[in-house]
Amino acid sequence: MKFVIQRNQLIASVQDVMKAISNRTAIPILTGMKIEVKNHGITLTGSNSDISIESYIPAEEDGIVNVEQIEEGSIVLQAKYFPDIVRKLPEQTVEFEVDENLKVTIRSGKAEFNLNGQDAEEYPHLPKLQTDDSFEMPIDILKSLIKQTVFAVSTMETRPILTGVNVKLNQDKLSFTATDSHRLASREITVKADGINDLNVVIPGKSLNELNKILDDTEETVEISVTNNQILFRTKHLIFLSRILDGNYPETSRLIPEQSKTTIHVNTKELLNTIDRASLLAKEEHNNVVRLTTLENNIVEISSNSPEVGKVTEEITVQSFEGEELKISFSSKYMLDALKAMEVDEVNIDFTGAMRPFIIRPENDDSILQLILPVRTY
Amino acid sequence: MKFVIQRNQLIASVQDVMKAISNRTAIPILTGMKIEVKNHGITLTGSNSDISIESYIPAEEDGIVNVEQIEEGSIVLQAKYFPDIVRKLPEQTVEFEVDENLKVTIRSGKAEFNLNGQDAEEYPHLPKLQTDDSFEMPIDILKSLIKQTVFAVSTMETRPILTGVNVKLNQDKLSFTATDSHRLASREITVKADGINDLNVVIPGKSLNELNKILDDTEETVEISVTNNQILFRTKHLIFLSRILDGNYPETSRLIPEQSKTTIHVNTKELLNTIDRASLLAKEEHNNVVRLTTLENNIVEISSNSPEVGKVTEEITVQSFEGEELKISFSSKYMLDALKAMEVDEVNIDFTGAMRPFIIRPENDDSILQLILPVRTY
Repeated sequence: MKFVIQRNQLIASVQDVMKAISNRTAIPILTGMKIEVKNHGITLTGSNSDISIESYIPAEEDGIVNVEQIEEGSIVLQAKYFPDIVRKLPEQTVEFEVDENLKVTIRSGKAEFNLNGQDAEEYPHLPKLQTDDSFEMPIDILKSLIKQTVFAVSTMETRPILTGVNVKLNQDKLSFTATDSHRLASREITVKADGINDLNVVIPGKSLNELNKILDDTEETVEISVTNNQILFRTKHLIFLSRILDGNYPETSRLIPEQSKTTIHVNTKELLNTIDRASLLAKEEHNNVVRLTTLENNIVEISSNSPEVGKVTEEITVQSFEGEELKISFSSKYMLDALKAMEVDEVNIDFTGAMRPFIIRPENDDSILQLILPVRTY
Repeated sequence: MKFVIQRNQLIASVQDVMKAISNRTAIPILTGMKIEVKNHGITLTGSNSDISIESYIPAEEDGIVNVEQIEEGSIVLQAKYFPDIVRKLPEQTVEFEVDENLKVTIRSGKAEFNLNGQDAEEYPHLPKLQTDDSFEMPIDILKSLIKQTVFAVSTMETRPILTGVNVKLNQDKLSFTATDSHRLASREITVKADGINDLNVVIPGKSLNELNKILDDTEETVEISVTNNQILFRTKHLIFLSRILDGNYPETSRLIPEQSKTTIHVNTKELLNTIDRASLLAKEEHNNVVRLTTLENNIVEISSNSPEVGKVTEEITVQSFEGEELKISFSSKYMLDALKAMEVDEVNIDFTGAMRPFIIRPENDDSILQLILPVRTY
């Protein structure tokens, strides 16, 4: 096995694949990175119990040669040292060579690394997914769906199903929903799903976070396909495979109040900054709880009180106010997360009393919704 | 007590003073920040067992008004929340007011914080230093002296005196020396020290690191004065007070070999990058040890070998080579630290055999010197 590769190409691929490689794994060979060399290009593979990532570097693309002097073969390299080595090599061109004893030589300029490789035959085979039942969507929209929902998954293993995001496809309607049972985030879009009619899976939040990190906006669409226990995201040069969580996701639609008693329309950034300040004193003692009180003349007061430290109050003028007067307390962290996910300048907040969940969404837009349960403080 | 201050001025001062404030202190009031308000300006003070920092904001300077509506007084505020509050206030102008019950009100825009203050009378008085015996030097040179030596102090408390930097002044020669007994860094400069003839103190490395962080290059000179157990650094708006370590610093001059058997002259950056690469595989098992071997034709080989992982070798061509052939092993970390501190494009390295300390310094310049003890590997 032999090849000569452009270092920048290799750095980017190694970084992506490293996201699936863990030092702590029950299968020792999975601490390594598999390098598979074919005449048409190089494939790097990393895998752990949750996700597997394959990154492909074509030998030639758009008239640019990435890989040369190819002799086919494959090897597994210790991943612990490999990214640093590649990043610090002195020249732009890097030569790899593997001998019959699995000794790997990496040369760049006058630097030469001799590493002990492992037999690629011992590396587990990734499951082959049927990609007939698949649909495509723009990468930037997938990233946005992830960012607007994944923060709301549960971090507690007491109800494992809630550590995932519920992804549903039903007649061209694709929805992402996450809840930790104190708050809920959901987003729905329309996709063209010709190859697949119906889908209802729960993807680990961690997997989606990693996927969001390695997807960039240079490649246009991502193809998504599902089997019983795996979901596959495929772009031009990347394969991202995640396990799917077992179990039924709770029905969340009945949690969403259909009527509201108090509605405010407010500048997102202004509310976000005010709540951020009010939360400063509420850090430890009060579990980040802040209070919202409606006053006269479209004024809303945000406040927080920690007897040992002090208190903070701030008034903001909202764009509009309808319905009953209200005093309500909630987690500032949940509120900040929700407002950050909104991606619009102004939001509507619908309350149904101090002890009922409230809803944040853009005006006249039901495609994104954030729900937060209040906190009883008195 | 009352004043109105420009937020940007306050942020910068608070950041500096926070470097002396620790959450873990035997004296509870030292977890707070003292604010002293006089008609001419505001002084913020923070202190721990090692250092004290005072930052002064003049009410007016160069025709610019920083502080207005001053009513004199002083208060101690809990430092834990204060920096975040100041940083996140909505407006550029901030109003402080303290009532007779030590309640502090901080207002900016529509945000209002009410904090519990503590009586400033309970805050310990900082020692007053006689500043007659003082000398001045440019701030950038002081920062450079610190950076070129402080990394070599010991981090072990077994010989406490070695955790400090030995600062000596003798007839206008100012020297900084640090050693952890495996390596030594020293730098000497000429200063105009009219007010002081003779000085020999040991300043904790930690103190100098903090001082280096808060000194910026906008103010031109720093005045240095010393008493029995404290050293004072004073700039236009800053007072930095550090304790001095008890005990005698070892005489280090005899450690420095006067003759050399092998001398190489080499590009600093090239050697640094080569050693950095060679150290990649030497991380854990080998305590970062790399080997330097002289070859023919001005070529030096840098190598490292970890049986479990692999080995790395790289040749560099040195500018000149004189004397005996040499094989020597040393800590790559010490070598990298020393080369980074050199601030010159090319260095001379003088060796006196594989088991004797070697010296790195600029050609024809004895003012900076880095000494490293080799490691016995065979």
